[in-house]
Amino acid sequence: MHAWLTDQIAEGFAATFRIGDTLYDHRSPYQHIRVVTNAHFGRMLVLDDAVQTTERDEHYYHESLAHLALCAHPRPRRVLIIGGGDGGLLKEVLRHPVERVIMVEIDAEVIAISRRFLPAVCRGAFEDARAAVRIDDGIRFVAEAREAFDVILVDSPDPKGPALGLYSGDFYDGLRARLAPAGVLAVQSGSPLFQADLLRTIRALMASRWPVVRTALVTVPTYPGGLWSLTLATSGADPAAISAHVLGAQIAGMHLRYYSPALHHAAFEVAAAVVAEIEQGAPHARAGSTLP
Amino acid sequence: MHAWLTDQIAEGFAATFRIGDTLYDHRSPYQHIRVVTNAHFGRMLVLDDAVQTTERDEHYYHESLAHLALCAHPRPRRVLIIGGGDGGLLKEVLRHPVERVIMVEIDAEVIAISRRFLPAVCRGAFEDARAAVRIDDGIRFVAEAREAFDVILVDSPDPKGPALGLYSGDFYDGLRARLAPAGVLAVQSGSPLFQADLLRTIRALMASRWPVVRTALVTVPTYPGGLWSLTLATSGADPAAISAHVLGAQIAGMHLRYYSPALHHAAFEVAAAVVAEIEQGAPHARAGSTLP
Repeated sequence: MHAWLTDQIAEGFAATFRIGDTLYDHRSPYQHIRVVTNAHFGRMLVLDDAVQTTERDEHYYHESLAHLALCAHPRPRRVLIIGGGDGGLLKEVLRHPVERVIMVEIDAEVIAISRRFLPAVCRGAFEDARAAVRIDDGIRFVAEAREAFDVILVDSPDPKGPALGLYSGDFYDGLRARLAPAGVLAVQSGSPLFQADLLRTIRALMASRWPVVRTALVTVPTYPGGLWSLTLATSGADPAAISAHVLGAQIAGMHLRYYSPALHHAAFEVAAAVVAEIEQGAPHARAGSTLP
Repeated sequence: MHAWLTDQIAEGFAATFRIGDTLYDHRSPYQHIRVVTNAHFGRMLVLDDAVQTTERDEHYYHESLAHLALCAHPRPRRVLIIGGGDGGLLKEVLRHPVERVIMVEIDAEVIAISRRFLPAVCRGAFEDARAAVRIDDGIRFVAEAREAFDVILVDSPDPKGPALGLYSGDFYDGLRARLAPAGVLAVQSGSPLFQADLLRTIRALMASRWPVVRTALVTVPTYPGGLWSLTLATSGADPAAISAHVLGAQIAGMHLRYYSPALHHAAFEVAAAVVAEIEQGAPHARAGSTLP
C-alpha cells in the first residue's frame, strides 16, 4: 500500500500525489510542514496538505509571479516579497539587476527546511548579498516599514487562519503605502476555477486603490486544476500593454524555462474571458466559494 | 458518502472529481461511457475513467487543437477529424469558412450521448450541412480514403487497446497520404509531464515524414496536471512563425474564450523547453512511461 497526498482545493475536486518517501514531517507554530517525494515531481513542499512547490515544476509559478511583475516595471531596484519562504521567488527576482530584496516570511522553519531539502528551488538565493530575510508577519511589516519598493510580490497562502489578514483592506492600505510611484504590486490570487471569490476579492481590494488592475492566468501543474491566477496593480503603465521588445530586453540572458514575452501577453489575454465571467457571476464564479 | 471519479493518468498522480449525479453509464463495444455531473465543471463525459470533456472547460482543449491547426493553414477548405465524437472539435472547425469537414468516429454511442447530454459542447455542429460523420475506424479510413485534406486533426484517446494503432507508422503513412500539399496535421500528444514517451513517439513518427514538427503546450484544467501537448506537422509554413496579424485575421469575429494569437505563440514557446528536456531524456522524460 502506498500513501497518497490529497490536495483538495474545493468540495468537488482534488489533485492526488502518491508519496514515495517522507523526508520531513513537523508542525511548526504556524502550519504542518512536510517534504515528500513523488515519482513525477521529485521533492515536494507541502503546507497543511496543500502543495506549495516541487523540484520539477517550481519554475512555472515562480518565474510567472516574479517576471510578470518585474518586467512590467521599467527599472526595478527595490523589491519586497511577502511570504515565499521556499526561496523560489527570491531566486527569480535576483536574476534581475535589483539593488535590494527584502523577503518577509512568518515561519522560519519553512526557510530552513527549503534550504535543507529543496536546494534546487532556492539555489543561491539566500546567500545573495542583495537579499535580506525578515522573520516577521507580512501584515505588520507593511504597516510599520517606512521605505518604498518598486515591486511588491505577495506569495500568499490559502485564505484561512492567520493568512486571512492578507485579504484585508488594512493590508492593502499598507501595500499601497509601501509601493513607490509607478510601482507594481503582484499577488497570487488563487485558482480561477475553484477560488473565484478569492480572485474577485483581491481584484476589488486593488481596484479601489490603483487605477490599473490586471489578472494573468498561468499554468502550474501541481496546483489543482493546473490553471492559476496572478493579479497585478499599478499606478504606472499597463502591464499587459508593454511591448514584447521591452519585455525581451528585461529577461535577456536569463535562460528561463516558462516565462517569455509571448507568455506574458497570452497570460493576460487568457484571463480576460475568465475574469469577465467571474465578475458577472457566470459559471466559474458560482463554482467555488472560499472566503468566509 | 459521495462517489469520486479518479482519473489516474500515471502511477503517481491523479485528478479526482466528486460525482454529483450519474446521467449515463453504459459499456459500448469499445469503451465504458459515462456522463456525470461535478459542482465545478458541470456535465462531464468520461470514457474508461478518463475525463474527455466537460461543459465548463471544453473550450480550452477544443479551441486549441482546432485553431492552432486551422490558423496555421493559409486557407483551410477540407478538414478531417479522427475521433472527436463529442463534437466539440467539429464545432470549433466549423467557425472557419471551411467547405467540408469529415469526422471519423469509431463509437456511434459517444456521438449519440454527446448530442443528448452535452448540447453545449457540440452546439449546432452535427446539424451543419458542411459536416459529414462516418462511423468507422480512423486507421482504416485514412488507409482507404482517396481525397486530400488541408487540415487533419487527430483527437486520439490514450494509447491502449484498439487505440494503439493510432500510434503506428502505418497510421502516419495514411495521414501523410491524405494530407494535401502544405496541409497541416495536428495531434493531441498527451501530457508532457506524465506521458513523455507518448509525446516522444508522436514527434518521432512525424519527424520522419514531415520537415516541420512543432509541439504546443496549452492548459486543460480537467486533464491531469492541467498542462497538455498538441503536436503539429506540415510541409508548409512553420505554424509557430505565423504573424499575430495573420492569425488574428483568421479568427476575426469568432469571440473565442481561450485561443488568441498571443496564446498561439506562447503555446509553442512554452513547449520548447519541455520538448528539449524530453528529447534529451531529462527529468520529465523519465517520469512516465506510457507506451508498451
